[in-house]
Amino acid sequence: MMSQFVAERDWGRFHDPKSVAMAVGVEAAELMEPFRWLSTEESAALLNDARRRSAVAEELADVVLLCLEFSAVSKIDIAEAVRAKLELNKKRYPVEKSHGKSTKYTEL
Amino acid sequence: MMSQFVAERDWGRFHDPKSVAMAVGVEAAELMEPFRWLSTEESAALLNDARRRSAVAEELADVVLLCLEFSAVSKIDIAEAVRAKLELNKKRYPVEKSHGKSTKYTEL
Amino acid sequence: MMSQFVAERDWGRFHDPKSVAMAVGVEAAELMEPFRWLSTEESAALLNDARRRSAVAEELADVVLLCLEFSAVSKIDIAEAVRAKLELNKKRYPVEKSHGKSTKYTEL
Amino acid sequence: MMSQFVAERDWGRFHDPKSVAMAVGVEAAELMEPFRWLSTEESAALLNDARRRSAVAEELADVVLLCLEFSAVSKIDIAEAVRAKLELNKKRYPVEKSHGKSTKYTEL
Repeated sequence: MMSQFVAERDWGRFHDPKSVAMAVGVEAAELMEPFRWLSTEESAALLNDARRRSAVAEELADVVLLCLEFSAVSKIDIAEAVRAKLELNKKRYPVEKSHGKSTKYTEL
Repeated sequence: MMSQFVAERDWGRFHDPKSVAMAVGVEAAELMEPFRWLSTEESAALLNDARRRSAVAEELADVVLLCLEFSAVSKIDIAEAVRAKLELNKKRYPVEKSHGKSTKYTEL
Repeated sequence: MMSQFVAERDWGRFHDPKSVAMAVGVEAAELMEPFRWLSTEESAALLNDARRRSAVAEELADVVLLCLEFSAVSKIDIAEAVRAKLELNKKRYPVEKSHGKSTKYTEL
Repeated sequence: MMSQFVAERDWGRFHDPKSVAMAVGVEAAELMEPFRWLSTEESAALLNDARRRSAVAEELADVVLLCLEFSAVSKIDIAEAVRAKLELNKKRYPVEKSHGKSTKYTEL
């Protein structure tokens, strides 16, 4: 559906991997934006407000849509990549070593 | 699968919406990283190198995995959000007005 | 000093505004990276560790160095831009309306 | 000046290192935003438009202002950090090895 959306608008010409990766980064920052000055507790509470929840859902969708477009442009099978990375993470962060540690990704 | 991965490691305690959104941003930047100094042409060529292609696929997967985790934490239905946003974008960027324009998202 | 560093390596050819802006974004994410899974309190404590403090200082420096390079490439006077924006922010966020509000930038 | 601006508004209570780093990331993405769909040539041309140039200058200033705030919050001497990192980069990327190479940071 995303590929068709892009094709109908002839936007593929702008969608080289560099530009689409940059667009993923821009959308990810828009997802961060409403949370940056909030405490942990406030960041959960924000999602109870219907209008704000809807805005956050749109930003999340934008990140995913651009990831799907990156997948189309790069011909990387996104479902396969996700499955493979999760398997890799299971090995990289064994339960017995990483249980309950916030240092996880950076420290192990 | 991602939720189970997180639960087994008891990482949910660190996964408030603010932190997960921040992690999406960090992973998005890792997807951008190999492309930043490349020309449009070089950014496409990089993906022909098997080792680099595989590294880029891992970064793309990381963004999606964190988006899935954000979905789980926020209880936002990610598939529904993506479908709804694409429908919205179709209205916001009608084919006749946005065809072939790189100014698209910012200018219309 | 940054301009000389770039010129000596003939890196100016890669430093169009788009690429340098992207590099600022990559470095900003590296500044975020050590904090993403930490609580507010832990994020302050991390800076008491000498090795980690030094790593964070390097990431902060990278963001600033790329901002200086963006300034050189775009011929935007960075000191003037900073002064002007701070004046604008003073008007945009008057003390009486914005005192003690975390909603500041997004809500006013 | 930035510290005074923050103190007058009693915003220091929201400015833990994690949140300020996140805000640097958000502002860096706003600097990227106007360039993401442009070619290298267009990204330089955009800066010739007075209104857009002024908007870009504001985003650049925002990144620097938040870096200054991060420096204040973390008590990292930003000028010293920048000087030290540039010296480190000179050693890390010797002219004879890095001259004219776009692979620079990632590959050496």
